[in-house]
Amino acid sequence: MKYPSNIKKNTKTHILYGNRGMDLENSINLANDYYANNDIAFIYKKPTPIGIVDTGYENNNYIIKKAYFKEPSTLDYNGLYKGKYIEFEAKETKNKTAFPLSNIHEHQIKHIRNILKHNGIVFLIIKINNNAYLLKGNDFLNYIDENSRKSIEFNFIKENGYIIKETFNGLNYLETVNNVYGGIL
Amino acid sequence: MKYPSNIKKNTKTHILYGNRGMDLENSINLANDYYANNDIAFIYKKPTPIGIVDTGYENNNYIIKKAYFKEPSTLDYNGLYKGKYIEFEAKETKNKTAFPLSNIHEHQIKHIRNILKHNGIVFLIIKINNNAYLLKGNDFLNYIDENSRKSIEFNFIKENGYIIKETFNGLNYLETVNNVYGGIL
Repeated sequence: MKYPSNIKKNTKTHILYGNRGMDLENSINLANDYYANNDIAFIYKKPTPIGIVDTGYENNNYIIKKAYFKEPSTLDYNGLYKGKYIEFEAKETKNKTAFPLSNIHEHQIKHIRNILKHNGIVFLIIKINNNAYLLKGNDFLNYIDENSRKSIEFNFIKENGYIIKETFNGLNYLETVNNVYGGIL
Repeated sequence: MKYPSNIKKNTKTHILYGNRGMDLENSINLANDYYANNDIAFIYKKPTPIGIVDTGYENNNYIIKKAYFKEPSTLDYNGLYKGKYIEFEAKETKNKTAFPLSNIHEHQIKHIRNILKHNGIVFLIIKINNNAYLLKGNDFLNYIDENSRKSIEFNFIKENGYIIKETFNGLNYLETVNNVYGGIL
């Protein structure tokens, strides 16, 4: 994945190109490490939910010999920032015109409603057309509630989302959170 | 596991015996389901962290064929309650005189310090001698910092912890949280 040469049009500060080949998850994990190491925030990716079927020993190590993947009912990342609960899901799509809603499960949508209702900060990070956008939980739900489409049009994301900057320390989404949620942080 | 006949001495309200054979994790999961279904709190157990070595297909299902267990760096449960970030670890011991500190890893202790510093609610639930106690993160850290023992004496837990009531809807730890953290909720 390469950044297009016009990325500078969308951001105002210096873009570091060191991580441009990094996928979204790695870039967020790198940022989370940076935040934790610098005492800024404690946000982690939840492990993949699995159902263990069989375990056993191999070379004296207790290992999983069979397990299946479970569908997550919450979002992938959660944690604590400035005393606030924060939770988000991160997805990238190669689709250039829309973000397919099959990426977000029905009970995750319900979960987003619950977190919002109980005053948590909740959003999606969507990487599409070589930019990562923060889309607020509220804006996402409004779209879902007002559209019967099975995807979110790129134009909606571009107009309602906020571009997140990529840095040497990963995807600096908390800078965007500060801008977007400044009033409650 | 049976409750001793004297458990009523420690609690003031009606104890329901339906779940008395239930282990700590199941009882907390039951409570979390109750909280979520009744729009009270959204707190979940994190999946066991694993490293996937091999995957494949079995009867057309994509499954894990080999994985190993990783050491967790955060606590087992976290979520949102009354707009606050909440995180805890739950452990039971059959030891009657002390809670072995081998149950809590070094980076989990560091994590507890971080969560406290950033104004999250963090505690341990320790089941010992047939009662579940909430031990505040602060009290736990004070013990760790002031003792070189490899376990927490039961007397310390009894004097500094708060007994949590078991109900038909699981271990009602949020009632205890209300009492203990009422000032900041």
